[in-house]
Amino acid sequence: MKVKEIMDQKFIIVGPDEDLLQASIKLEEHRKFTAPVVNKDKKLIGWITALDVTRGLREGQKKVSDIMHSTEEIVHVHQNDPARLAVLAASQHKLVSIPVLDDANMLVGVVRASDIVKTLSSLYEIKVDKIFRAMAEELKGVNWAELMEASAIVTRRRTGTMVTAKDYEKRIKNSTFGEAIWTTGGLEKFFVGLIAIGELVIARRIAKARK
Amino acid sequence: MKVKEIMDQKFIIVGPDEDLLQASIKLEEHRKFTAPVVNKDKKLIGWITALDVTRGLREGQKKVSDIMHSTEEIVHVHQNDPARLAVLAASQHKLVSIPVLDDANMLVGVVRASDIVKTLSSLYEIKVDKIFRAMAEELKGVNWAELMEASAIVTRRRTGTMVTAKDYEKRIKNSTFGEAIWTTGGLEKFFVGLIAIGELVIARRIAKARK
Repeated sequence: MKVKEIMDQKFIIVGPDEDLLQASIKLEEHRKFTAPVVNKDKKLIGWITALDVTRGLREGQKKVSDIMHSTEEIVHVHQNDPARLAVLAASQHKLVSIPVLDDANMLVGVVRASDIVKTLSSLYEIKVDKIFRAMAEELKGVNWAELMEASAIVTRRRTGTMVTAKDYEKRIKNSTFGEAIWTTGGLEKFFVGLIAIGELVIARRIAKARK
Repeated sequence: MKVKEIMDQKFIIVGPDEDLLQASIKLEEHRKFTAPVVNKDKKLIGWITALDVTRGLREGQKKVSDIMHSTEEIVHVHQNDPARLAVLAASQHKLVSIPVLDDANMLVGVVRASDIVKTLSSLYEIKVDKIFRAMAEELKGVNWAELMEASAIVTRRRTGTMVTAKDYEKRIKNSTFGEAIWTTGGLEKFFVGLIAIGELVIARRIAKARK
């Protein structure tokens, strides 16, 4: 995934000569804590935050350029960078938004922490059921009931709790991937559990074929 | 995972009678765009953002209580809520931080979008190699070389690209789970690929045992 796929192309901009009071009203109206400062060519020349604006208002500053950070001080990404660069930047520097530039260094978007949260969390929200459906489809010659039966057996072996195939089916229908990796103790453990189920189901299929 | 595991217990607070100028300086010094307003008992009674502060300063307001949002207007979570509730709230309402309450409705923490990004992205950053190591350990009687060989075969079948076991090993060493699910086209497809590899490796193990 690239930065341009998670960036917001709708963003507010301010000019360096813009009146600070006007800029503060603009931030409030659009409920943005930050805004890029651009010149007439849409080139990024600075960055302001609502905190810079409060300081500027307190200290009697007049223009955006009086309070803005220079581009050297701020983190930016390019639209064709891998999205994970923006994610790592937001995480490491605790940023609420990051300006996105094109190859000519023109401002083309903004990546926001809330958009990153939305993108990242969609993986966690995938229903475990969907993974099992894909697994059943992949394992030719194994039907859904057999898969649930094997899953219940593996769960009983691993956790010692009495779980029937029906219980298991109900459980995965209502749980998300995020919950599943949390319950099993991590991504690798979750996958290993699935592999164990796959192994058992294949062994049972072979045993059946031999009969 | 619970909210209390991802919340920040270090946070700034402001009082309703606090001078607005002082509150604005406090936000700037701690580089926070938001702050909870609490009474003397540490009970949450409101919320301010840097944008409310800029408006207050412009309009000549004097106290925090003049600009704060009431608790009815703001989203909060409880410390024992599942962490995903905070994640969904941050994503849906585009929040940069969310106050966390205990059972007595006292303020005990703040969940920040950047912390959520950090927590969520750690899953994406897991090396694919780790998943394969766990898989090799689970599949008794299958060694690493056999697993890489089967992985290369499955990849060749599915993508039509010539990949050797060595190529495959190198590839998974350098790629993350996030990249892998992006490359394969989603979580289910990534997992189905693993199951196909598991299936092949088991079939080869059985064939070998019969010889």
